[in-house]
Amino acid sequence: MFTNDDHRYMALAIELAAKGRFTTTPNPNVGCVIVKNAQVVGQGYHQRAGEGHAEVNALKEAGQNAKGATAYVTLEPCSHYGRTPPCAEGLIKAGISRVVAAMVDPNPQVAGKGLAMLEDAGIETASGLLQEQARALNKGFLKRMEQGLPYVTCKLAASLDGKTALKNGQSKWITGPNARKDVQRFRAQSCAILSGADTVIMDDAKLNVRIKEPEIDLPKGQTLRQPLRVIIDSQNRLTPDLALFQIAAPILILRTHLDNQRQWPHFVEQIELPAQQQKISCRAALEHLAERGINHVWLESGATLAGVFARQQLIDEYVVYLAPKLIGCHGKSLVNLPEITVMDEITQLEFLDVRQIGEDIRITAITR
Amino acid sequence: MFTNDDHRYMALAIELAAKGRFTTTPNPNVGCVIVKNAQVVGQGYHQRAGEGHAEVNALKEAGQNAKGATAYVTLEPCSHYGRTPPCAEGLIKAGISRVVAAMVDPNPQVAGKGLAMLEDAGIETASGLLQEQARALNKGFLKRMEQGLPYVTCKLAASLDGKTALKNGQSKWITGPNARKDVQRFRAQSCAILSGADTVIMDDAKLNVRIKEPEIDLPKGQTLRQPLRVIIDSQNRLTPDLALFQIAAPILILRTHLDNQRQWPHFVEQIELPAQQQKISCRAALEHLAERGINHVWLESGATLAGVFARQQLIDEYVVYLAPKLIGCHGKSLVNLPEITVMDEITQLEFLDVRQIGEDIRITAITR
Repeated sequence: MFTNDDHRYMALAIELAAKGRFTTTPNPNVGCVIVKNAQVVGQGYHQRAGEGHAEVNALKEAGQNAKGATAYVTLEPCSHYGRTPPCAEGLIKAGISRVVAAMVDPNPQVAGKGLAMLEDAGIETASGLLQEQARALNKGFLKRMEQGLPYVTCKLAASLDGKTALKNGQSKWITGPNARKDVQRFRAQSCAILSGADTVIMDDAKLNVRIKEPEIDLPKGQTLRQPLRVIIDSQNRLTPDLALFQIAAPILILRTHLDNQRQWPHFVEQIELPAQQQKISCRAALEHLAERGINHVWLESGATLAGVFARQQLIDEYVVYLAPKLIGCHGKSLVNLPEITVMDEITQLEFLDVRQIGEDIRITAITR
Repeated sequence: MFTNDDHRYMALAIELAAKGRFTTTPNPNVGCVIVKNAQVVGQGYHQRAGEGHAEVNALKEAGQNAKGATAYVTLEPCSHYGRTPPCAEGLIKAGISRVVAAMVDPNPQVAGKGLAMLEDAGIETASGLLQEQARALNKGFLKRMEQGLPYVTCKLAASLDGKTALKNGQSKWITGPNARKDVQRFRAQSCAILSGADTVIMDDAKLNVRIKEPEIDLPKGQTLRQPLRVIIDSQNRLTPDLALFQIAAPILILRTHLDNQRQWPHFVEQIELPAQQQKISCRAALEHLAERGINHVWLESGATLAGVFARQQLIDEYVVYLAPKLIGCHGKSLVNLPEITVMDEITQLEFLDVRQIGEDIRITAITR
């Protein structure tokens, strides 16, 4: 159904889409390639919400060459008026004769409407080419559209024997500088960094993106964005003197009851969420983040909060850094989970990737 | 100093040497390639103690072509009469004109004597070509020769969070069938499999090689050997009804005092070793094994014994299988080590290799 050339152009569109991964939030990453007479005449990707969609940018580059050309897009062109006019309309007006989409719109209520609009205008359409790769670009956006929850990646770091700290709490540094820089790259691509008050207080953590722009493959002309820092503070233990609050970038504190006693900087927002036994519902927290347009949450907390998310099956992916060290049985465990008594109840994952990062190892696993 | 061709032929000799890895114990793995007029005229490797050395086998194949040829050997030819006549003499008699060795004899007291014997006979010699690769072939033999101790590889298996079992002790099976088969391959290449009475009793472990010959890359014509099973039983807790004793293959029990009350099968030997506070000295155990010609010990024990070996710095290498599972903080830890209070005291390792084995990950680390 699809030719080798179709595959090649769609692969290029996916590469383009990935250039938006540091910046498009809450929008998806989308790339577009316009091809006429076996020549790429236009390329574009979506860089930032409110700015041009991938199709618009590619059409601009193609100009008159768009007439009779094929457009490869990593996501079905939109059919609705948002901050920009519908891309389907733009493609029709430009005289595109064929549109190939990697996947249809993830929102089941609008899926197919963009392609239908194109077909109604006499344009040949097809979809599903390199769909899996296209979905991988937008794990967060897709999960939010399909399930009303953000995609949650839980970051953990430990010695080879799975200990995150000495018994006395010391943990600086278990992993090496390359692993810590790698974490910064992940933070920079996330929409929100989520942690608990305990961790923030114990580590006096800033939870911001501190990597220098030349150190990540940030596309030219882009600047780093600070993800929303979200802290679960069920017992109002945070205080404004913490290092977290010395970085002037948005912070959202999730509470069981608002803390209006203390003076908070202007970039701090606090909200109340449903709680059980004085603890915020993690699911409610994620639902709230999804409503705010948070696609991908980077969960960087202690073993207890990670365990709560894990056993409520709210974690999609684990990124675990293991250092070439042994701490022994007295060290702190990676994840706090309730005791189980039969092997069948073990939390099952699937390893997706493993590689050396400097002196350490990084393991990526997804939940099954 | 060495040509490209020299490298190529030595690489071939190393490949040949590796064919002996399941069988040569207590001898080293050695390969030999004889080259005349840019043609390989003889190839050989050492297969089993008491049988032909690599040089002898290669010379046999070369026949008259050995005259004026170059011999590539992965280890300096021997100069002494053992179970077979010295290989240096054989090379001289055959009329070899140049000998290239990857490394000299690891025994400092004989190192260089084989090459000197060849030089005295007017043969050109050189050594050090692909030395690192040649040393890697014989980690165990070299350590025994150089330090009077076997090379110890500690095998561990755990969930991603470093837990070897549930709190109640259940551990079957954390890792998958491919990882367990991989362990069999390592066992088959070791000289001895070492464990503690606790583990043997708890798991009713057989500690033998159970893999089928077609499942490992055993060279044609070879049969699998059962490594010596060595159990540390400081408190005479083993009983003859255990599964271990139902496999008729050599077992050595290391004790603080002999158990002559129970009836042991004929293939069981028990010896007394020095002890401190009723516990056998692990160093004395390894020294004893080295004296018996054990080059490479595969340590497959519980977290306690592994920890004792680790903190006495008797472990050279760790092979750790991690399963895509989370057990949580109540599970059993990978290694029992005394509590440390400062990060500087952490046991430091270095990752050598990491790869997926079926659904699991295998990490190889060496001590620094």
